Amino acid sequence: MRAIRKNEAGPGLSLVDVPVPRIGPDEVLIRVAAAGICGTDAHIYQWDSWAQGRIRPPLVLGHEFAGRIVELGSAVRGYAKGDRVSAEGHLACGVCPLCRTGQAHICPSMKIIGVDVDGAFAEFAKMPASNLWKIDDGIPDEVAAIHDPLGNAFHTTMAAPVAGRTVLILGCGPIGLFACGIARASGAVRVIASDLNDARLQIARKMGAHVVVNGSREDLAGLVRRETEGLGVDVALEMSGAPPAIVQALSLVRNGGDVQLLGLPNGAVLVNLAEDVIFKGITVRGILGRRMYDTWYQVRGFLRAGLLDPQPVITHRAPFTEFERALQDLIAGKAGKIVLTFPQ
Amino acid sequence: MRAIRKNEAGPGLSLVDVPVPRIGPDEVLIRVAAAGICGTDAHIYQWDSWAQGRIRPPLVLGHEFAGRIVELGSAVRGYAKGDRVSAEGHLACGVCPLCRTGQAHICPSMKIIGVDVDGAFAEFAKMPASNLWKIDDGIPDEVAAIHDPLGNAFHTTMAAPVAGRTVLILGCGPIGLFACGIARASGAVRVIASDLNDARLQIARKMGAHVVVNGSREDLAGLVRRETEGLGVDVALEMSGAPPAIVQALSLVRNGGDVQLLGLPNGAVLVNLAEDVIFKGITVRGILGRRMYDTWYQVRGFLRAGLLDPQPVITHRAPFTEFERALQDLIAGKAGKIVLTFPQ
Amino acid sequence: MRAIRKNEAGPGLSLVDVPVPRIGPDEVLIRVAAAGICGTDAHIYQWDSWAQGRIRPPLVLGHEFAGRIVELGSAVRGYAKGDRVSAEGHLACGVCPLCRTGQAHICPSMKIIGVDVDGAFAEFAKMPASNLWKIDDGIPDEVAAIHDPLGNAFHTTMAAPVAGRTVLILGCGPIGLFACGIARASGAVRVIASDLNDARLQIARKMGAHVVVNGSREDLAGLVRRETEGLGVDVALEMSGAPPAIVQALSLVRNGGDVQLLGLPNGAVLVNLAEDVIFKGITVRGILGRRMYDTWYQVRGFLRAGLLDPQPVITHRAPFTEFERALQDLIAGKAGKIVLTFPQ
Amino acid sequence: MRAIRKNEAGPGLSLVDVPVPRIGPDEVLIRVAAAGICGTDAHIYQWDSWAQGRIRPPLVLGHEFAGRIVELGSAVRGYAKGDRVSAEGHLACGVCPLCRTGQAHICPSMKIIGVDVDGAFAEFAKMPASNLWKIDDGIPDEVAAIHDPLGNAFHTTMAAPVAGRTVLILGCGPIGLFACGIARASGAVRVIASDLNDARLQIARKMGAHVVVNGSREDLAGLVRRETEGLGVDVALEMSGAPPAIVQALSLVRNGGDVQLLGLPNGAVLVNLAEDVIFKGITVRGILGRRMYDTWYQVRGFLRAGLLDPQPVITHRAPFTEFERALQDLIAGKAGKIVLTFPQ
Repeated sequence: MRAIRKNEAGPGLSLVDVPVPRIGPDEVLIRVAAAGICGTDAHIYQWDSWAQGRIRPPLVLGHEFAGRIVELGSAVRGYAKGDRVSAEGHLACGVCPLCRTGQAHICPSMKIIGVDVDGAFAEFAKMPASNLWKIDDGIPDEVAAIHDPLGNAFHTTMAAPVAGRTVLILGCGPIGLFACGIARASGAVRVIASDLNDARLQIARKMGAHVVVNGSREDLAGLVRRETEGLGVDVALEMSGAPPAIVQALSLVRNGGDVQLLGLPNGAVLVNLAEDVIFKGITVRGILGRRMYDTWYQVRGFLRAGLLDPQPVITHRAPFTEFERALQDLIAGKAGKIVLTFPQ
Repeated sequence: MRAIRKNEAGPGLSLVDVPVPRIGPDEVLIRVAAAGICGTDAHIYQWDSWAQGRIRPPLVLGHEFAGRIVELGSAVRGYAKGDRVSAEGHLACGVCPLCRTGQAHICPSMKIIGVDVDGAFAEFAKMPASNLWKIDDGIPDEVAAIHDPLGNAFHTTMAAPVAGRTVLILGCGPIGLFACGIARASGAVRVIASDLNDARLQIARKMGAHVVVNGSREDLAGLVRRETEGLGVDVALEMSGAPPAIVQALSLVRNGGDVQLLGLPNGAVLVNLAEDVIFKGITVRGILGRRMYDTWYQVRGFLRAGLLDPQPVITHRAPFTEFERALQDLIAGKAGKIVLTFPQ
Repeated sequence: MRAIRKNEAGPGLSLVDVPVPRIGPDEVLIRVAAAGICGTDAHIYQWDSWAQGRIRPPLVLGHEFAGRIVELGSAVRGYAKGDRVSAEGHLACGVCPLCRTGQAHICPSMKIIGVDVDGAFAEFAKMPASNLWKIDDGIPDEVAAIHDPLGNAFHTTMAAPVAGRTVLILGCGPIGLFACGIARASGAVRVIASDLNDARLQIARKMGAHVVVNGSREDLAGLVRRETEGLGVDVALEMSGAPPAIVQALSLVRNGGDVQLLGLPNGAVLVNLAEDVIFKGITVRGILGRRMYDTWYQVRGFLRAGLLDPQPVITHRAPFTEFERALQDLIAGKAGKIVLTFPQ
Repeated sequence: MRAIRKNEAGPGLSLVDVPVPRIGPDEVLIRVAAAGICGTDAHIYQWDSWAQGRIRPPLVLGHEFAGRIVELGSAVRGYAKGDRVSAEGHLACGVCPLCRTGQAHICPSMKIIGVDVDGAFAEFAKMPASNLWKIDDGIPDEVAAIHDPLGNAFHTTMAAPVAGRTVLILGCGPIGLFACGIARASGAVRVIASDLNDARLQIARKMGAHVVVNGSREDLAGLVRRETEGLGVDVALEMSGAPPAIVQALSLVRNGGDVQLLGLPNGAVLVNLAEDVIFKGITVRGILGRRMYDTWYQVRGFLRAGLLDPQPVITHRAPFTEFERALQDLIAGKAGKIVLTFPQ
C-alpha cells in the first residue's frame, strides 16, 4: 500500500510503498477514506526540535482519520466488515492507575498513532478495537476524519461550565474554531475569539463567535474589559500555544475564573503566578487529547443534534498524494483544517 | 395603597386599602409595575392544606414582581430612585451556617415575601437592598416581573451539566417551559417535554423542546427508550410535583444520571429506591428557589445574549384589579404564566 | 473441587463436587484462600423473593474472596502464578456507554459473580484478568477476602466530602462499621453510628464512631439535633436498607446536605420528598458496588497507611465446610463479618 | 491606645499612641488579646518592593488576632460585650458579582486589615460584625489569634480531595506546617513535607508528616518517585512561594494531579507549561485567603474534634511591645509562628 512516511531523521516526508499492517486478535484493519492534517504533522515534516526529540523514523504519519473496517481480529466483538469508523489515536496501556481510574487520556505509557507508532496517512491502518468509534451514516468522511481535533475542542471547552458565562478563545486554528461553535451552542453568553489572522477570524465568526479580535492591531485587553464590565472573562481557552496568548489568558480571566490550556508552547513561559493566578484565585487546567470516551459521545451528540457544523473550518481538501502542497499551505497559515482523501 | 390580600383564614383574596410599607435603613420602597402569579398564590387563594398550615393572615400576596425604586433607606448604597428592579423574594437570615457558606437559598430561617411576610401584589412593596436585582433597559416589565420563576428554571436546569446530554422535562407549567428553552440553549442534544395538556406542549415546542409527549395518551417510557438507545435520559427535571411524574423521572433516567426535583408533591411519595435509585447509581437533587445570586446572573446573561425568550410562556396579562379572574384561569389550567400590571 | 452451591430453586445450599472452572485467554484461575459471607448470600440461602427473581440455579455462591493465581490465560499480562489477588466481582460488559465513560460499576449489562455466574465459595474460581486486584504482602487473607464490602464502604463514604463534617451512619452491619472507620480517618468531625444491636454498636465504637445510638431505646433525632446545633448532619450514609432508617437519613441531614443510599430496601419506600428533599435542597445518591477501580486504590491506600483496621469487624472465621452454621449466625444477627477459610 | 505602626514610607515599625478606633453601626470594637505575626508583616517591616507598591503609611499592622468585644454598633445583632472573637481580615465589598456568588474571598475591591486599612497590632481594633468569628471557650487566645493562617492552610488543603491520596507540601512555614496536620487528619495516605530548614521539618513531623525532606541535601524528586511507584504525588501544596519549589510542585505531581499554589513568588516564574501542565493534564489552583466562611467552619470543626493541634507550630510568644525582636527572629528563620500578647 502507499503511505506518507518519515523515512529518516531530517525534514520532509515521502510517499512510499509499504506492506499492509497485520492485525492482532484485538485489532481491526481499516481502509482509510480521509485523514486530517494536524499541526503536529507539520512539526514532524519540518523536523523541529520537538520532532527531533520524539520521532523515531521510519514512521507513517497521521492520527486524524476515518475509513471502513476491512478485516477483524479473532477476539473483536461488536464490529463488522464495512463499518465506518474513526478512532481514538491515543493508545493507553490499560493497566496503570491512570487507565484504571478513568484517566486513560493521560496514561504515562501512552503511545500516539502517527507519532510513536505507524499512523493513518496510508491506504490502510490498524487499530485496537477498544479505540474504534462508529460513525453515523449521515456524517461525511471529511467530518468523520477530524473527530480527533473536534474532540480536543470538546475536551477543552467542556472542562468547566460555559453556559451563562463569557468565554475567550485565544488562537483560531481548527481547534479554536471548533471551540467557538461548541461554546456558542452550549450557552456561552459571549464568545470572544482572538487571533492574528483575519481569514481565521472570519471563520470564527461563522462558527459562532460574537466578537472577533485581531490582536495585531486591536486591544484585546480593553475589549475584554468593556465586554465584561471590567471583571474579565469567566473562562479562557488557550488554543494557540503562543506565550503572549497564554499570558493574556491568565491576565484576562476574572478572579475565580477558569483557564484551560491546550496549545503547546515551545519552551518554558514566564508566568506572573502571584498576580495572575494566586491573587485571583483562578483554576488552570492542562488539557490533553480527549476523555476516553466521554468526549467522543459529546462529539456524536452535538453532530447528531445539529448543534455544531465543523465544515466551515475545513478550508482545503486534497488527494493524499498532494500532501506536500497541503503541508506547505498549512505552514504558510493559509488554511484552516486540511483533509486528505484516499482512493476507495 | 391598594393591595391583594388574604384577610382571614379561608378561601379567597380581597382588594384592600392598606398603608404604604415603611422602610428601614437597609431597605427600599418599590412602586410595583408588574407581578407574576405563581401556583403558590393559587394554593393560598384556594386555602388548601398547605396554605392552612403556613399562612398567617392578614397577608399581602405576591413574590414575583418588578418595579421602580421610589425611596431608599439611609444605609442603602449602589441604588438610586428610579432604578428598575426585581428582587429575590427569599429573605435569608444572613447569619446562620447556611447563609455564611453560600447556601442562603436554603437558610432554615428563611422568610418568603407573599408567604411569610407581606408581598408584592400591591402598588408598593418594600425590599432589603441586599435582595434587589437591577433590570436592563431593554427588558420589558412583564419579563422583569417573572425573574423569580425564570430563576427556578435556571437553578434546576443548571444543577447538573446538560450540554451534550439528553434532558427530560416533566411538567410544562411556566417553570418547565422556561427549562425547555434553557436546556436547549445550553447544548442539550435532545429535550423531551412531557405534560397532560396539549396547549402547554405547544408552548414547550416553541420554547425549544425537540419532542413533546402527552402522557395521557402517549407512552413516555417507550419514547424515552427509543430516543436514548434504551439507556434512559441523562437528566430528568421534575417540574410538576405529580407523584406519577416523579416516579417516571426516577425510572426513565439512565444509570448514573441526574434527577432534579423542583415540583412539590402533596404528601409522601412511594419510591422504588432499590430499583430506581440505588441499583442505578443515580443522583437526586432537591431544588428550592434560586442560588443567591449565581442564578440571577445566569438569568441576566441569557436574556442579554438573546439565548432565551420567555415571552411565549406569558399567555395572559391583566390589570391587577382583575386578579380573581386571572387566578381562576390559572386554576382551570388555561394559562401559562399570568402577569398582573399595576398603574404607573 | 468442592463448592457451595444452590442446586435448585428453593431454600438451602449444598456442598458439592464440581469441575474446576476452565479459563479463557483473558482469564486466570485462582485457588481461593478465604471468602466473606455477604447478606446477599443469606438472601440466596433463604430463597427470599429477591433471590427467586434473580437467581438461576445451579449456581456457586460467593463474591467476596481472595486467593492465589494458579493458572493464567494466554493473553493475560501483568500477573504471575502465585500472585495473591482479590477481584472486583462485578463483570461489566466493557463496551456500553457507561463502561466507556468510567461508570462500569453501573453497567446495565453487568453480571455479578456468585449471583449471575458461578462465584468464589469454591476451592477454585476463575476471573477476567481485568478484574484482578493484587494484594500487598502484609495483608492477611481474611482482610484480602473482604475488599468487596470494604470497597462498598469507601464508595459510599467518599461520595461526598466528609473532612470537617458531621457524618451519620445508619446501620452497623459490616459495611456500616467499615464506614465508621473510613469517615473517622478521613477527617469527619463527628461520626454518629446508629443500629438496633448493641454488639454491633460496640464494634462501631472500636471502629471510630464518636457516638453510638441504639434506636430501639434512644432518640436519634434528638441526639442529632444536640450534636449539630439543631441543623442536622452534613452527611448521612444509609447502610441498613430499613425503610425507617432511610426516612431518618433524609430527615436528619441538614439543608443542603448529602445522603448516600447503599442499603437495599425490600419494596417501595414512602418518602416525604417535599419536606425532606426539595425544601431542604439536599442531594441523594444511590451507591452500587465499587468504582472501577478508583475505590480499590482507596482501599489499598488506607490499608497501607494504617488508616483503617477492618479486623474488629470480622467476628467469625470458619472452615468453608461449615458454611451452614455461619449463615445461621449471620441470619440470627450474631455476627459482624464472617470469613470462610479454604484448605491451601 | 498603643499600636504597632508603619509611620512613613521606609523600613521599620514604631510603637505609637493613637486614638482608639471609632466604630460605625455595623461594627464592633475588640480589645485585642493576642495577634500572630505573618510573613506579610515582615515584608512591610522590611519595606520590600511589594510593600513599597502596596502600603500607604501611616498604617497599623496586623491581620491575625483574637480578643473580646468591648463595644457594639447599633445595628449589630448576634454578638454581645465580652464575646471572644477572631475575625476574617479580608473586607470584601459585598455587592460585586464575586461577593454575590460566594466568592467574596477574591472580591476585586477587597481591602485587608493591616495592609490596606488599620489592623490589629494594637490594644483595640474595630471590625465589621459580618467578619467576626466566635471562639469556643476551650480555645486558648494564641490559637484563636492564628485562625487566619490556619484558615489559609485549610483553604489550600481542602481545595481538592486528600483522603486516600498522597500529598506533597512544599514549604514548612506555619501555613505549610498546619497543612501537614490537616492533610494527615483528613485521610492523606502519605504526607511528604519539604523545606530547607531542619527545625521546621522537625515540627512538620510532629504535625503529622510521614516523611520530611530537606531539599538542600536530599533528592526530593527521587523520594517522591520511590514513595509513589514512579507516578508522582496526587496533590502538591505549594506554601513557600520559592520559584524552585513551585517548579517542583508542578513536576512532581502525577498526571491528572492537583497543585494548589498559596506561596507568593516575587516576580514572574518560568514554568514548563507544555511538559508539566498540559501533557500531564493537571489542575493548578491559585489560593487566596479563606472561603467566607466555609473555611472558618472547617477550622472550628477540626479544633472541636481534636483533629488538629496547631500549638507545636507556635514557637515564640512575646509581649506586643517586643515586636521588633520577634520580627527579627521571624526574618532570621528561627521561628515558626510568633504570637504577640497584649495586656488585658
